[in-house]
Amino acid sequence: MYRSHSCGELRATDINTEVTLAGWVQRIKDLGSLNWVVIRDRYGITQLVFDEGRSAKELLENSKKLGREFVIQIKGTVIERESKNPNMPTGDIEVLVSGLTILNEAQTPPFTIEDETDGGEDIRMKYRYLDIRRNPVKNNLMFRHKVGMLVRNYLSTNDFIEVETPYLIKSTPEGARDFVVPSRMNEGQFYALPQSPQTFKQLLMVGGMDKYFQIVKCFRDEDLRADRQPEFTQIDCEMAFVEQEDILHIFEGLTRHLLSEIKGVDIADFPRMTYDEAMKTYGNDKPDIRFGMKFGELNEVAQHKDFKVFNDAELVVGIAVPNGSSYTRKEIDKLIDWVKRPQVGALGMVYVKCNEDGTYKSSVDKFYDQEDLAKWAEVTGANPGDLICVLSGSTNKVRAQLSALRMELAERLGLRNPEEFAPLWVVDFPLLEWDEDTERYHAMHHPFTSPKPEDIALLDTKPGDVRANAYDLVLNGNEIGGGSIRIHDKATQALMFDHLGFTPEEAKAQFGFLMDAFEYGAPPHGGIAFGFDRLVSILGGQETIRDFIAFPKNNSGRDVMIDAPAIIDKEQLKELHIKLDL
Amino acid sequence: MYRSHSCGELRATDINTEVTLAGWVQRIKDLGSLNWVVIRDRYGITQLVFDEGRSAKELLENSKKLGREFVIQIKGTVIERESKNPNMPTGDIEVLVSGLTILNEAQTPPFTIEDETDGGEDIRMKYRYLDIRRNPVKNNLMFRHKVGMLVRNYLSTNDFIEVETPYLIKSTPEGARDFVVPSRMNEGQFYALPQSPQTFKQLLMVGGMDKYFQIVKCFRDEDLRADRQPEFTQIDCEMAFVEQEDILHIFEGLTRHLLSEIKGVDIADFPRMTYDEAMKTYGNDKPDIRFGMKFGELNEVAQHKDFKVFNDAELVVGIAVPNGSSYTRKEIDKLIDWVKRPQVGALGMVYVKCNEDGTYKSSVDKFYDQEDLAKWAEVTGANPGDLICVLSGSTNKVRAQLSALRMELAERLGLRNPEEFAPLWVVDFPLLEWDEDTERYHAMHHPFTSPKPEDIALLDTKPGDVRANAYDLVLNGNEIGGGSIRIHDKATQALMFDHLGFTPEEAKAQFGFLMDAFEYGAPPHGGIAFGFDRLVSILGGQETIRDFIAFPKNNSGRDVMIDAPAIIDKEQLKELHIKLDL
Repeated sequence: MYRSHSCGELRATDINTEVTLAGWVQRIKDLGSLNWVVIRDRYGITQLVFDEGRSAKELLENSKKLGREFVIQIKGTVIERESKNPNMPTGDIEVLVSGLTILNEAQTPPFTIEDETDGGEDIRMKYRYLDIRRNPVKNNLMFRHKVGMLVRNYLSTNDFIEVETPYLIKSTPEGARDFVVPSRMNEGQFYALPQSPQTFKQLLMVGGMDKYFQIVKCFRDEDLRADRQPEFTQIDCEMAFVEQEDILHIFEGLTRHLLSEIKGVDIADFPRMTYDEAMKTYGNDKPDIRFGMKFGELNEVAQHKDFKVFNDAELVVGIAVPNGSSYTRKEIDKLIDWVKRPQVGALGMVYVKCNEDGTYKSSVDKFYDQEDLAKWAEVTGANPGDLICVLSGSTNKVRAQLSALRMELAERLGLRNPEEFAPLWVVDFPLLEWDEDTERYHAMHHPFTSPKPEDIALLDTKPGDVRANAYDLVLNGNEIGGGSIRIHDKATQALMFDHLGFTPEEAKAQFGFLMDAFEYGAPPHGGIAFGFDRLVSILGGQETIRDFIAFPKNNSGRDVMIDAPAIIDKEQLKELHIKLDL
Repeated sequence: MYRSHSCGELRATDINTEVTLAGWVQRIKDLGSLNWVVIRDRYGITQLVFDEGRSAKELLENSKKLGREFVIQIKGTVIERESKNPNMPTGDIEVLVSGLTILNEAQTPPFTIEDETDGGEDIRMKYRYLDIRRNPVKNNLMFRHKVGMLVRNYLSTNDFIEVETPYLIKSTPEGARDFVVPSRMNEGQFYALPQSPQTFKQLLMVGGMDKYFQIVKCFRDEDLRADRQPEFTQIDCEMAFVEQEDILHIFEGLTRHLLSEIKGVDIADFPRMTYDEAMKTYGNDKPDIRFGMKFGELNEVAQHKDFKVFNDAELVVGIAVPNGSSYTRKEIDKLIDWVKRPQVGALGMVYVKCNEDGTYKSSVDKFYDQEDLAKWAEVTGANPGDLICVLSGSTNKVRAQLSALRMELAERLGLRNPEEFAPLWVVDFPLLEWDEDTERYHAMHHPFTSPKPEDIALLDTKPGDVRANAYDLVLNGNEIGGGSIRIHDKATQALMFDHLGFTPEEAKAQFGFLMDAFEYGAPPHGGIAFGFDRLVSILGGQETIRDFIAFPKNNSGRDVMIDAPAIIDKEQLKELHIKLDL
């Protein structure tokens, strides 16, 4: 036994107990005849005292050889601390050391192992094992475990069965790029790593599993935007004999359970919004509804004058910034510069100050009178004291731009409180979306999503108008989960593949096994998948997923700690029947 | 809502209740004016009745269109069953149907969906989603989930944190063959899929995680022997500040917990045996100790006569088969044929019948007298009525042969009761084993295993004699877990790599990150990993792991259901900077 107690365990009630502790040297305060050393493990920290007067001189001398992050084991007696530290769980006591063993020495770490470290992102990633010793990272990983256990126990209690689906599957042309794995035993052939266990969970429904879940790694070989990982974790779920309402009910329950257990927040029924409404009101299919600034569409009240910019626009739309009328000209100019940044891409911004006295002052006073502007204020819900920001252009672009502005302003105004939780279901997503690059429709969710039966007739005439039985769960402006009711008959699935540009032969080659399965008694089914990394980070009140992943990869998909990927032996390539093509 | 109750739920107390059920048609018994249909879902089966007299004629007609495995939804009233079936949980009732909806039709399944199916292995694998509908497979998957939950909750309660380690890591030359993944973003480089999260869990210990576990997929690109899978699941665990005893204690606790919760079996302290003792006594490092037939080494009492076969042998060793003296000459000849099979490889077998009257009759009476044979009986523990089987040859080979014979005889004698559980710790494994093919020592467990400190001096002189702090947990003759105390200092790790034939440069290139980590304060640590597939199958009282895996691969590493691996696009290869080399 290396230890009798953890470093976070001892209290005043343990005074006079003989203890053995083991851990890392966190701090050393050498006062000559007295040496205070703080020892740390996962569970906390404890102050040790080496004292010439009260212990062997040799012990004190040895304690002076210690350095930060040395791994030590000590024996000693718990004593009362003279100057107690109420901020430290073990702050009432210290341990008078009677024996010291250095279990392992340590070089000076390349950054400080403190809550606020001096280490930059790169060095922290290279020495991730040291970074994990820091409370913020350690606590995030422990938090992730806790959320995982809550999810598993909740779903298990609700009759869901966790089933492991395979990692070595088949590459499919639909969706994102696959990672592939050459097969040694099947010459010239490749496995693919799953982007999600989608078809397998559907086959489990055909197999009568009824309620399935899995917390599972998924893989996408995409160019990595900030905060995306090539491997990520999903809470993957599927249910048979359900309609959308059943799925929303059970997973609203799961989310409510997590918020209640973790945050002590009890939230009543989650609000719902259609995709169309979300796009119209927030310019975004994952709106943050912790605050207002809803969109007001101004075409009717702004396209009757001689202002060509507005008259030529497909959409004129504004938001009211609370108490924004006090912005100086300079501040407003900066805001205009902000929306003109390439990342946002607006050509300009019209603004209206809603003065406290009920008058208006706008950047387009040349074209619009007080009566016009009063109407704008009405449409955008602006009150005296607010600032109306108006953008115009083609609908999709201008919505995205104004949505970005809305989020930026909310951030500046402190309206995005990470300890406030506002979930929202967005429903009735379009089935298909037009892809400019390939000039064809793509499945917005995936090719297995069921169109709404009443919209199937539109597939041939207005494919873009067909709505799907698809839904997203949004939390604080982040999509944390998304799913759909699936197609469960061969004819509809074939129709869907046809509209996605598959020939019947291609559909059969890729997904024949699924369409075959639909002929042997497939029940109606649907499901949802949660992005576990994202969910955990939001519940943890943080923006970035990277520090909730033990060993993340950088934006080039590299693990800089182990230095992977790496070259492999020629012999190994030969066995796999491949060669490099550089 | 597709259903008000499951198909396993209704009881006599529900009589007169209006219900809606959904599920698969299991059986149809058409009596003309009366049609009995049994409906099935994950939860059970319920008998439905369509009756001309009691329901609309049309309904009866429609019920006659049903076929096996059709997916249906029915509404009806729970009524008392005339001839109750006490073997069926819902056997007291049936449902008089008032409404029938066919949710999906089904082709006739290629094999019967019954507990005992007429489908062979190949067809069941191709239509695995139908196979999963069968109770034996479905129950196995549900059982696996239950064991997983028990493991997770036990470890979590004992302060273990589940941490997800990466799947895209680096290929290493040591151990089995890796599956590799070409990197698109890092030209000419490859990730490898982990054979185990070994180095990551050690880094988590260096990172202060203290107690780690993960139920995780691992990958080995090996030629597949029966009942091996290229991807398999491991319960992977590691602890810091521990000695072997601490690890044995906690995982004995886990195993005891599983046996108690699942089997209602309470087992006291698990017995322990050294590797040497196991090899000497059972010829095997994973002995099945549910029965005796321990080895008796006969060199001393069999090499003093003129029998050249024994005199030339490195080892002469026998077992006493209970009540085997009644075997006929023919039966014994068959046994001799059995040990001569190429899979066993013995050249012959000497036997001694221990007659009930205390005399002996052997196949080597020419060389040995009654006094000699009495000594053999004493050494092998044979009683009157037993049969002594003796093999001879080089130690390792003859032990393996006699071990195979011992298991075969136990099987024939019905001594391998799947509902009896006999766990055993095997400890003090050798650190290294000589590999004939490569003519060098390999790590028996893995290169991170700590030699016993008292044996380190032997590394240079008698490497084969160095024992490791390594242990296996054996259950009923199967290794279900194995682990070791790890090296935690750079010097010993470097020494180990040196003995495994790595140059310092190779060691640094492959495992530099780990050896670096050991310089920043690595605690003593060790761990264990359980083969989850195997553990579940043994707890489930079955021999084969395949039916505890939802979608297993065949012996060529193929998923015959989805037909993977498969060829991929030239375009895809190009992006990955590789081409085929056939």
